[in-house]
Order: sequence, then structure tokens, then C-alpha cells
Amino acid sequence: MKISIVGIGLLGGSLALQAREKGLAGRIIGVDASDANAAKALQLGIVDEIATLEEAVHDTDLIVLATPVDVITHLLSHVLDIVPEGKVVMDLGSTKEIICRAVQDHPRRRQYVATHPIAGTENSGPEAAFSGLLKRKIMILCDQEKSSNTALNTVVSLSQSLEMRLSFMNSVEHDLHLAWVSHLSHISSFALGVTVLEKEKDERSIFDMAGSGFSSTVRLAKSSPDMWAPIFTQNTQNISRALDAYIRRLQDFKSVIDSQDEARSRELMNQANEIRRVLQGIDHKLGSL
Amino acid sequence: MKISIVGIGLLGGSLALQAREKGLAGRIIGVDASDANAAKALQLGIVDEIATLEEAVHDTDLIVLATPVDVITHLLSHVLDIVPEGKVVMDLGSTKEIICRAVQDHPRRRQYVATHPIAGTENSGPEAAFSGLLKRKIMILCDQEKSSNTALNTVVSLSQSLEMRLSFMNSVEHDLHLAWVSHLSHISSFALGVTVLEKEKDERSIFDMAGSGFSSTVRLAKSSPDMWAPIFTQNTQNISRALDAYIRRLQDFKSVIDSQDEARSRELMNQANEIRRVLQGIDHKLGSL
Repeated sequence: MKISIVGIGLLGGSLALQAREKGLAGRIIGVDASDANAAKALQLGIVDEIATLEEAVHDTDLIVLATPVDVITHLLSHVLDIVPEGKVVMDLGSTKEIICRAVQDHPRRRQYVATHPIAGTENSGPEAAFSGLLKRKIMILCDQEKSSNTALNTVVSLSQSLEMRLSFMNSVEHDLHLAWVSHLSHISSFALGVTVLEKEKDERSIFDMAGSGFSSTVRLAKSSPDMWAPIFTQNTQNISRALDAYIRRLQDFKSVIDSQDEARSRELMNQANEIRRVLQGIDHKLGSL
Repeated sequence: MKISIVGIGLLGGSLALQAREKGLAGRIIGVDASDANAAKALQLGIVDEIATLEEAVHDTDLIVLATPVDVITHLLSHVLDIVPEGKVVMDLGSTKEIICRAVQDHPRRRQYVATHPIAGTENSGPEAAFSGLLKRKIMILCDQEKSSNTALNTVVSLSQSLEMRLSFMNSVEHDLHLAWVSHLSHISSFALGVTVLEKEKDERSIFDMAGSGFSSTVRLAKSSPDMWAPIFTQNTQNISRALDAYIRRLQDFKSVIDSQDEARSRELMNQANEIRRVLQGIDHKLGSL
């Protein structure tokens, strides 16, 4: 199979590396708006050649759109306009509702599969790609009834060969859930980073005492603004509701701390401790296929 | 040297294990308000024997108070009342101002060293203790001018033998800094846990899609309420200011997201990205002595 990766960053690059390692791709073509990124990806052996989008679409069996979600939305219609019959298009975007809606009436909609691999790190660009990133992670397939069986089978087979776990889901539900378990935690981390960095202006040695707990909580603040700004725009309402709920909870914590109400603060923390169950579930999931 | 550990949990237990491994302690005596914890610590080989507080204070060279901070504040005066001359008392509490103030006029104040090891995990109890926890971590010594040279040398020598990095600091400054780089990130995580667990009541499968980013951000929500409730009470003002600043920043994020102002949201995230420098510093610090 010949695969094209459009946007050779952390996710697209990692998919390419793993597909190659598994012997799934005879040849991998890279497309990137940045010449520097393209050259880097070539040099790192992530792709075999660089092409224009049009060349790539005509020349490959599977086109993987791995750019930020605003670019995916913009490119997808164009790619479907020019994609030859029998070829398959998928995307790796972190939002699905607006992307799916953008092509809902496209005559070649059935050649497209809307997917979202739940995988990533706080790093970005081709240098951040590594072949283990997708292994054992969840591949969400949205609105699968709108894809042809051929397209679906290509993507399912790829995902299984990459040792990913499949999960089918409605695109609207996908965006709602992701707002709470991914988009919100990124914003909580971005905001924590900004807050503490601002305090550092007055208290210069503040980070001398930061330990691994702080690192863990603020790690996602390193994430790419180019990737995240369009996610916020494509999932505004769900994220806004999640943020409201989070701010309310923080205000609850502030009020029990201000009033030194230890009984109520223990109650809130006991509630939070229930996250153990969830984290065990995630560890379990990531630890075994 | 004979060491007593009062409160044989994650920190006290880990200190005991490491002191034994390094051959620093001839005998380790454990004191714990919970019989179950005490029995567990004995069974796990963390301590050699269990004693009452009074027996332990009379019988050992170094008394380490490793309970929650409210209990430390309460016990410390009593321990200083009965501690024999020449023996040394230290504590491992995450707040220092109120603890130091509680004994500022005590006639045996100089036998006490106020310390805080910047180390921990989200787990608690003797089962959570492990011998590597303190290695390469920072040991903060507060208000060292109020301790005798003998007391100071005992604690410095112990810390160095445990391969910890020493840092001297005023207790008031300690509490201010910790509010921003530790207490705030714990609350951000506790609140995130509560928020998403509440959403789960309506959306039962919400966590099916949580990945390693969510885990990392919410990990501290597993922390012990018994340990944290008294920290909030002892550092109320600093934490309250930090939380105010954090909530303001989250409201900034919410407002740029609601208005889909991508330019401003990129700006905020670019600011947050500066945390890379800080995280590299922490990694570097934890990676080398």
C-alpha cells in the first residue's frame, strides 16, 4: 500500500514510522506546507519523498490528513474533489463534528473515514514523531455508517496492524466527550503555566522548589498553539461548558480554603480521589491490547 | 544513630527505608496513631519496633515528625518539652510558617530544624513508601539561624547521606513559593478530578477516551485529603491568592475561546509554552546531583 501523509508532525510522522516498521507501506509520500518540516521529515526517514497535495492524492491508496483541524476542514473537500475512485481518505483531527459536517453532502463522502487516535505528547513537529506513539492506543472512528465498507476496511485494517484498539462513535458525542477528558485538561494546564510564569516575574526563584508533581500537572502547557487554537474554535460550546464547570469547582475549593472548612475540603478531595478508579482503567487500557 | 519516625507514611517511611539502605540508622523506631499503619510498617520492615511518642523521644538521637502538618504543629511543642539535651527534632511538613511560629519562643527551639523535602507521589501510607523517593530531591531547611549548629549538622549530614540537594530558605518565603508551585497544582488537579467525575454521571462512557495527557494532569487528584486539608488551613492566604490568579487566567481562556479569538488564544498558549524552560530545569535538577 502507498500512503500519503499530509502534515508530517507528531501524529502523522508517528503513523508513518509505525506503518513502515510494520511493513504496511510500500512507499510513503509526505506533503507539508512548511519546506523546512518536509526536508526534516525526509532527512529523518519518516517519508520516502515529498510531493504536492495533488500529486500525493493521485498517486496513493490512502491519504492521511494530519494537519491542525482548521486545515483539515479546509483541505478535506478539495481532496475529495480530486481523489480517484477506490482510494481512501482519513484524518487524525482532535475534533470531528465540524469536519464531518463540512463534507456531509460531498458526492465522495463514502471514500472518507473520520478518525481520531487518542495519542500524543506535548511535543510537535517531525522531530517529535516516534514509532511507538500509536501502539495500544484507541483509534476512534466516527460516523462509520457514512463511509463505504472498502474505506472502513482499509482504515480498520491499518489500525489493527498498528496494534490500536478500535472504538466507534458518533462525531457529535466525540466532541462532547473530548472537551471533558482532553480539551479541558489541556486548558487547565495552559492556564496553570501562564499563572505561575507570571508570578515568577515577582518571585524569581519560585521554580527552584517545583518538583515532579508540578511537572506532571503543567506538562500539557508545552502543547502546540497552532494545533490547539483551531480545536478551541471547532469545539467552542462543549469546551466553554466544561470550563465553566471547572471554574465553578475551583471557586468551591477557594471558598472552603478561605473559610478553612476542613470537613468540606476533605469531602471535595475524597470525591476527587475517586479518579483512582479512572486512572487504573486508563493504565490498564494502555498496558494491554 | 537511632532514628524515630513519627507518622510512618509515604515520606516518613521512605526516609526510613533510605536511611537503612545507606547504613545511617542502627535502629529505627516507629510511632503511629494508627495501629494498623504501625503493624504494616513493622511487617514491611520499614521500622524495627513500634513505641509510644514518649518512649521514642527519650530513646533516639533524631526524631522525624512526618505526620500531616496540623499534627506536626500540635506535636512539636510537646516533643520539644520532653526531648533530652543533645537530641535533634526535624519535621517533613509541606508548610513551614505556622509550624515555626508555634515554637519560636520555645526554650529548646535550637534543637529543632524545620525541613521540607520536595518529594512525594500521589500515594500515601506505609505501603506507598520506597527507598528511592528522596534521592536527588531538594531538602529545604527553613530559618536555619534558629537551629543550633549541632542540630543543623545532624540534618545536613542526614540529607547529604540520602543524596539530597540542600536549599536554605526563610519559612515565610517557603510557604509563599510552595503555594504557587505545589499547592496550586494539587488544587487544579483535585478540581479537575471532581469536575470530570461529575460529568461522568450524565455521560457514562466519558473516560473511554481519556489518554495519557488526562492522566498526567489529574494524577495529583489521588493525593491524601488528610495530608492536604491541614496544608490549606496553614497556607490559606498564599493559596487563596494563587487560586485567584489561576481562576482569572482560566476566565481569560474561556473568554478568548467563547469569542473564537484565535490570535489571542495563540498568544496565551505561547506564553504558557515558556514552561518548557522551567520543566527542562526540573528534569535537569532531578536527573543529576
